Amino acid sequence: MANGVTLESLRQSLIRQEDTIIFSLIERARFPTNSPTYNESYVSTPTFSGSLVHFVVKETEALQAKAGRYANPEEHPFFPDNLPPSVVPPYNFTEVLHPPAASININKDIWDMYFKKLLQLFAAPGDDGIYASTAASDLVCLQALSRRIHYGKLVAEVKFRESPEEYEPAIRAKDRDALMKLLTFESVEEAVKKRVAKKAMVFGQEVTLNNDDNKGKYKVDPSVVSRLYGDWIIPLTKLVQVEYLLRRLD
Amino acid sequence: MANGVTLESLRQSLIRQEDTIIFSLIERARFPTNSPTYNESYVSTPTFSGSLVHFVVKETEALQAKAGRYANPEEHPFFPDNLPPSVVPPYNFTEVLHPPAASININKDIWDMYFKKLLQLFAAPGDDGIYASTAASDLVCLQALSRRIHYGKLVAEVKFRESPEEYEPAIRAKDRDALMKLLTFESVEEAVKKRVAKKAMVFGQEVTLNNDDNKGKYKVDPSVVSRLYGDWIIPLTKLVQVEYLLRRLD
Repeated sequence: MANGVTLESLRQSLIRQEDTIIFSLIERARFPTNSPTYNESYVSTPTFSGSLVHFVVKETEALQAKAGRYANPEEHPFFPDNLPPSVVPPYNFTEVLHPPAASININKDIWDMYFKKLLQLFAAPGDDGIYASTAASDLVCLQALSRRIHYGKLVAEVKFRESPEEYEPAIRAKDRDALMKLLTFESVEEAVKKRVAKKAMVFGQEVTLNNDDNKGKYKVDPSVVSRLYGDWIIPLTKLVQVEYLLRRLD
Repeated sequence: MANGVTLESLRQSLIRQEDTIIFSLIERARFPTNSPTYNESYVSTPTFSGSLVHFVVKETEALQAKAGRYANPEEHPFFPDNLPPSVVPPYNFTEVLHPPAASININKDIWDMYFKKLLQLFAAPGDDGIYASTAASDLVCLQALSRRIHYGKLVAEVKFRESPEEYEPAIRAKDRDALMKLLTFESVEEAVKKRVAKKAMVFGQEVTLNNDDNKGKYKVDPSVVSRLYGDWIIPLTKLVQVEYLLRRLD
């Protein structure tokens, strides 16, 4: 299948990415909310004014762009405007996606979801002053979520190649609802939500040598991780898939 | 005790940092070795020439310095020369350490340990082209290790304040061996090595809904994590403690 990419290999990658996402949330939860990190007037320089997290994400993306990060079609910047060019030799990534896919980037939605909804559900209220590390930690979460959600492009491509006849009528009709229906498998979604909650329990427990009970005490609430998948990651991934498919015959 | 810092609160933090370190190794292990990341002639710009990981670490540290990261006495840069000043309002971190502590930075040793010894023990041989993310992932490991090892300063300060009479003769005699002996508790070290191996098993397993056996298959070999602590983290932490105590009466 498609240059070695199969639904099974994508599924394995998505499962592995669950661990990455949960680790990143647990690591962000080391810090309290640290609201000054998000204060829009916290950073003011001749070239930038805005929140510290905006500053850290934008500047980190600029240097990672120089390091070649966004030559990889799996990576999507949060601030794609005016990114500097790569300074490293080009790497020949396998082209799996239909070229119009490159224009799909829903990081704005991911940013809003993360800062307006998710963060307050798992970061404890408080302020320890460690804002730069907090912002760096937010970036790791954002990048893990973005990579996972934009994987929808690959999933859609492989599904399309497996049975184009199933998708073509809805694509030609630009029928988003029909596409969404074709991409929805409730029992699979329920299993994912259960698995990520279990992972949050396993990875977020306090591991001690004498296996005592910390039952019920986790670094990130498993139900929040389950909700993150059910309310946001899965729907946003399907949104990416629909956007991808709508361009698939262009 | 010392501005709210106690041996017990430090112990809790060190235990929590074990999770951070193990997560960071598991995340680095997503990528194969990716040797071009470490090729000294990979990046060549008018202002920089060297390896990609050097470029990414140096540039990330520069932007994090602007974001105020190194105002926190728990953080130590790998490339401290010519770091730009912070552009954010100063935060009043509690001063726990004796001022000469600020000059202690053994990140050069940590860098060499990580790249010359540790990395090859847990990254699978291979090349997937994802070098920028690999370098970013190395940086997360390096920062977690550096923070953990330089915690030795705090540990030494609290131990010193608890019983200065125990340390003063060796400090005045500049007797490193005697200090090292005072700071060594073999049974504690053995327990740490066992605990981190167990954590590597818990965090590095493949979690599935139907709890089947992936016994013996972990994303990072637990014995490598145990060795990381026994051969490098614990000895380097004690080195930091000795360096700190030698300056404690200045």
